[in-house]
Amino acid sequence: MAARILITGADGFVGRAVARALPPERLRLVDRRRPDVAGAQCIAGDLTDRTALPALLDGIEAVIHLAALPGGAAEADPAASRAVNLDAALNLIEAASGRARFVYASSIAVFGPPLPDRVDDDTPPCPAMTYGAHKLMVETALADAIRRGDIEGIALRLPGIVARPPAPSGLKSAFMSDLFWAIRDGRPYVVPVSSEATIWLMSASRAAANLVHALAAPSGPALTLPALRTTIGDLVETVAKGRSAAIAYAPDPVLEAKFGRQPPLATPRADRDGFRRDDDLSTLVQSVWSLT
Amino acid sequence: MAARILITGADGFVGRAVARALPPERLRLVDRRRPDVAGAQCIAGDLTDRTALPALLDGIEAVIHLAALPGGAAEADPAASRAVNLDAALNLIEAASGRARFVYASSIAVFGPPLPDRVDDDTPPCPAMTYGAHKLMVETALADAIRRGDIEGIALRLPGIVARPPAPSGLKSAFMSDLFWAIRDGRPYVVPVSSEATIWLMSASRAAANLVHALAAPSGPALTLPALRTTIGDLVETVAKGRSAAIAYAPDPVLEAKFGRQPPLATPRADRDGFRRDDDLSTLVQSVWSLT
Repeated sequence: MAARILITGADGFVGRAVARALPPERLRLVDRRRPDVAGAQCIAGDLTDRTALPALLDGIEAVIHLAALPGGAAEADPAASRAVNLDAALNLIEAASGRARFVYASSIAVFGPPLPDRVDDDTPPCPAMTYGAHKLMVETALADAIRRGDIEGIALRLPGIVARPPAPSGLKSAFMSDLFWAIRDGRPYVVPVSSEATIWLMSASRAAANLVHALAAPSGPALTLPALRTTIGDLVETVAKGRSAAIAYAPDPVLEAKFGRQPPLATPRADRDGFRRDDDLSTLVQSVWSLT
Repeated sequence: MAARILITGADGFVGRAVARALPPERLRLVDRRRPDVAGAQCIAGDLTDRTALPALLDGIEAVIHLAALPGGAAEADPAASRAVNLDAALNLIEAASGRARFVYASSIAVFGPPLPDRVDDDTPPCPAMTYGAHKLMVETALADAIRRGDIEGIALRLPGIVARPPAPSGLKSAFMSDLFWAIRDGRPYVVPVSSEATIWLMSASRAAANLVHALAAPSGPALTLPALRTTIGDLVETVAKGRSAAIAYAPDPVLEAKFGRQPPLATPRADRDGFRRDDDLSTLVQSVWSLT
C-alpha cells in the first residue's frame, strides 16, 4: 500500500503522536531531521524550498501540516517565522490544491494572549504574537482556498499540548509540560505562574486523534478545538497523585497574563463535528504517562 | 525639498486623487505605468520585484500603499493576487520597517460579501473573495509589525470609491461608478442591482483626504472608514439632478447579494481619530464632478 498521507513536522512532539495514530505504510513523514518510523516513508526535507513540494506531494491524498517555528522563536525572528510559518504553509496549500485534503495545525495564539473573558466560535481572532499572526494569516488563506473549491480541508486551533519533552522548545508555555517531568522525577520545580492560573490543555494523543479525525471531517473555516480547562494547582495535584511534589509558585506577571488567564471556552462547531477534549484531568495525565 | 512620501499605485484612480492632495515636491510616485505629475518623482516600477524596494524607499518617511490587483482580477488569478496583493505588501512593510510610516489601503472586502446585518468596529472580518482574504492577511501582518514596534502606521478599510473612470477596472462593483458617466453623457444604462439596493460610498477626494489624514493619525489595528450609505435609487436621482436619465434596473442576484445589501455602518474608532465620510449625497456627487 502506497503512502497517501503526508505529515510535516513529523519528527516533532505532536507529529510523532499523529504518526503513531495512523498505519505507518500509509505515511510519508517529513521533517528537517529525518523521522524514524518503521514502515513509513521518512524524509529529511526543508519545506521552505518551494521546488521540493511537488515531489513531496506526489501520490499524496491528504496533508497534516504541523511544521512550524514555535512562538518564542517566531517572536525573536519574524523573518524566519514568515518563511516557515507563513510562506511555506501557503506554498504547501497551493501545491496540494486539486490533489490533497489539507489539515492545518493552527493555534489558540490567534486569540491573544491576553484572551478575552470568554472564548467561543464567535470570538474574533486578535493575535498578540507574530506566531499567532502568521497562524491566522494561513487560516485566512486556507479558508479562501476552500471557498474557491481549490482544496478541501480544515484548520484546527490547538490549545497547549502536554507534556512536551523537557528540551528547549522555543515555546513560552513550556512550563505546562515541564512540571510533569519535574514531578515524575521528584525534582523541585518553580512554576512561573500562580496555582490559581487557569490554562487550556490537551494531551498529545488527544491532539493526534483530533488531527486524524480532521482527515474525514467537513471542510470549512478554522475550528477552535475543545480543551480541558484547569488551574495549575489542580493539574499539579493530579500529576503528583498523592506523592509529595516540591512545587513552588513564583508568578511572572508577563507569563501569568499571557498564559494563566485562559477563560471559559465553548466550541460548539468543533463539538458538533466530532472533535473532543480529554475527558478529565486524570485521563489527560494518564494519557501523558502512557506515551513515556 | 526632497521627496519624503512614497505613493504606490500612484497612477490609479485613488492614487491620482491622493497625489493631488499633497505637495508634488514631497512625493515619489510609483506605478507599473510611470505616473505623470509635474514636480513629483515619477517612477515606473514593479513592486513584486523585492530587490527594487530599498531604492524606492531611500529617503522616504511615509508610504501610502495603494497598488493592488482589483477584486475581479484577483478572483480570476489567485496566484497573481498573492504576488501583488499579499507578498509585495508584506515585502514593502518589511522594507519600510524602522524607517517609514505605513498607510495601507485595505477594503470592506474583508467583511464579505455578503455583509452581516450591521457592521461596526467589533464585526469580525470574514472575507468571501481572494482579494478580501489577502487584504485581511496584510492587515494582520501590519498590525503585528506595529505591535512589535517595527513600524508605525494604520490600515484603512475603504468602501466603494466613486466615480472610477469608465474603463474596465476588474472591479465587480464598477456599476456604482458607471452610472455616473452614463447619466452625465445622457446614455441609457442598465444598473445590475435594484433601485432599493443599499451601498456604502466615498468620493475619491474624500478617500484621498482620509489617506492623507492617516499620515498623522495614531498607529493601531485596521480601521473601517465611515461611508455614506445610500440606495442606488437615491444616488441615481441625485446624480441626475432633475435631468431625465435613461436608467433601468435589472438586478443580477449575485451582484445584488454581493454589493447591494450593505447594512448600517458604525465606525466609532475612525470617527474618534478624525476620519470622515462625505457629508451627504449632493456633496459626494459634487465632489465627483469637480474631478472631471
